[in-house]
Amino acid sequence: MVEEKKSSGMDIDLGNLCSERAYGWAKKTFANRELRFGMPVKGLDGSFSNLMNYGQVRIAMSSDGIGTKIELAERTGIYNTIGYDLMAMVVDDLAANGIEPTNLSNILDVNHLDQEIVDQLMHGLHDAAMVTGLAVVGGEIAELGDRVGGYGERMHFNWCATGIGILPASVEPVDGRDVREGDAVVALESMGFRSNGFSLVRKIMAASFGPDWHAEPHHDGRTWGEVLLTRSRIFSPWIVSMREQGISLHGIAHVTGGGIPDNLARVLKRHGLGAHLDELPPPLPFMTEVQTLGEVPEETAYRLWNMGAGMLVILTPRDANLMVELLGREGCPARRCGTVTGTPGIILESRGAEAQTLEFKS
Amino acid sequence: MVEEKKSSGMDIDLGNLCSERAYGWAKKTFANRELRFGMPVKGLDGSFSNLMNYGQVRIAMSSDGIGTKIELAERTGIYNTIGYDLMAMVVDDLAANGIEPTNLSNILDVNHLDQEIVDQLMHGLHDAAMVTGLAVVGGEIAELGDRVGGYGERMHFNWCATGIGILPASVEPVDGRDVREGDAVVALESMGFRSNGFSLVRKIMAASFGPDWHAEPHHDGRTWGEVLLTRSRIFSPWIVSMREQGISLHGIAHVTGGGIPDNLARVLKRHGLGAHLDELPPPLPFMTEVQTLGEVPEETAYRLWNMGAGMLVILTPRDANLMVELLGREGCPARRCGTVTGTPGIILESRGAEAQTLEFKS
Repeated sequence: MVEEKKSSGMDIDLGNLCSERAYGWAKKTFANRELRFGMPVKGLDGSFSNLMNYGQVRIAMSSDGIGTKIELAERTGIYNTIGYDLMAMVVDDLAANGIEPTNLSNILDVNHLDQEIVDQLMHGLHDAAMVTGLAVVGGEIAELGDRVGGYGERMHFNWCATGIGILPASVEPVDGRDVREGDAVVALESMGFRSNGFSLVRKIMAASFGPDWHAEPHHDGRTWGEVLLTRSRIFSPWIVSMREQGISLHGIAHVTGGGIPDNLARVLKRHGLGAHLDELPPPLPFMTEVQTLGEVPEETAYRLWNMGAGMLVILTPRDANLMVELLGREGCPARRCGTVTGTPGIILESRGAEAQTLEFKS
Repeated sequence: MVEEKKSSGMDIDLGNLCSERAYGWAKKTFANRELRFGMPVKGLDGSFSNLMNYGQVRIAMSSDGIGTKIELAERTGIYNTIGYDLMAMVVDDLAANGIEPTNLSNILDVNHLDQEIVDQLMHGLHDAAMVTGLAVVGGEIAELGDRVGGYGERMHFNWCATGIGILPASVEPVDGRDVREGDAVVALESMGFRSNGFSLVRKIMAASFGPDWHAEPHHDGRTWGEVLLTRSRIFSPWIVSMREQGISLHGIAHVTGGGIPDNLARVLKRHGLGAHLDELPPPLPFMTEVQTLGEVPEETAYRLWNMGAGMLVILTPRDANLMVELLGREGCPARRCGTVTGTPGIILESRGAEAQTLEFKS
């Protein structure tokens, strides 16, 4: 998939290599907390978050940022929605392990400060925290001059956060251990690109409409900039709610970089299983429009973007029906979209610009 | 102090304003965890870290970065020491509230990846974790292209982290509530600038030696770049050790941005007290040399830089003597440096290039 790597603007293999190195070093520090508070729980390698023992409770910790989606805020001058994206990236990684996000600390790197923009960013993060039911307990703003770049003349910034969450002593983490052949897969629908794949999106838009592509009118009456800025839906409150209502979640994939195939495979690999996804939600129309503008092959689109499915949950078919009904009542669009199969590999009936059957080997 | 703000390369007032705004938004989210796991503990406003209730235990969370000190790594090509700086910035804020750091998650923003540099950075962070007795449990590496700038041709990056730590149910946080007139102040000595005030340091060096100032030989046989890169000493293990040995710590100031006056004032203000610091450790010779090169007034130097005192601990005179002795045995240079006074304001017998009596009002 050299083509894909090139077109995404990033070298995914090098990224994985660097992450593995970083994790290798990190792992050597685990013994520091052996039999003490903060001891990492074993067996969660490769999960979306991590987990530490603190006596009666276990705490999980997860970090993420919103990458180059920030350029959309800089281009549109709309700063009060990307807090949702930041929140979603962090807490939905926790939720993917069945963990209830409780607290968040954020770090804002800026070239120079603009009080009004900082206020709008934090307002958005606050709004997202209210949706998530989480307390923002920490933050750091660093003025770094030329070390931070961006678009236009106003404040440039990069923004990341670390969230922690709790798993009561009586509850097991959701890590794929209970996934079985015949389980159902439920897709929680996204509202757009969330915070992944924007390097390619920006490249396509610039090639299609020139440097001021964000101001280009979209046929829905908004500008393309506003359309692409569409905020992330935060899934974690629904995941927590499902658990509290007694639904047993066998596995959860947060669809981030690597798309459905990579992230679902992380959950299925534990027991060497696969999946057939024949009723995925359709991507948002503007996602397909971007795909068409960039002549992005269907397979690449499904590897780089969520294509309408922001989170995939694996559970028994009976629970899947119940979950879809409950989520519908609570206002989260969700649907059964496929089945767990007995052999590795994901077969996916795609719904992008060139709908087809895609096969992803593991 | 307009002069100081200008010379530091940052507008401290605007920074404070933005931080207050951010904290204002964050505070509105605290009620989300009312009577639930992760409920922020009240009464720690303005502390160095925060604290959340998790049943039997309380967890604290703190975020920080290493600012523009990164340029020193880029200039010298030495990447395996700034992990100490990152660790120190984060865990010593926790230690300043008497909290034992247990886990850390880091976020590395890069323009493009360089595997060798990532490896050295993480190696350094690992080494610092071994010193701290902490497990690095999370990390995120984000490739952000032109959003990240820096010096030279190799990988540019910004690096920050969030640490969590624990306070057992039986122990009160160190937050200045026990500080009394007549208490002693103990200074834990730094080895250099740690991670604060580098904007001004870099400006002075460039003005003195030109764009390649890092390669300029220092009289100790190293280059100026190597000298300024000197890693941070991590104080938290000693703070934890003192508590475990039964020494009652009344207040702790981590000397970061704002220097001794601002950070000590944060601890003293609870009871409207002041301090007379008449035996501070001398700054490292190279700190005074930088001060002289930049003709930095003594007062400014003490506001922007730690000037040799990386952490100040307040305790009874009797415990102060014991602590200095214990720390000496454990390899941490420390000394009694002053006394808590009954009225606000800090009187400081400075030891920089132009030693004098400085008065800082609160």
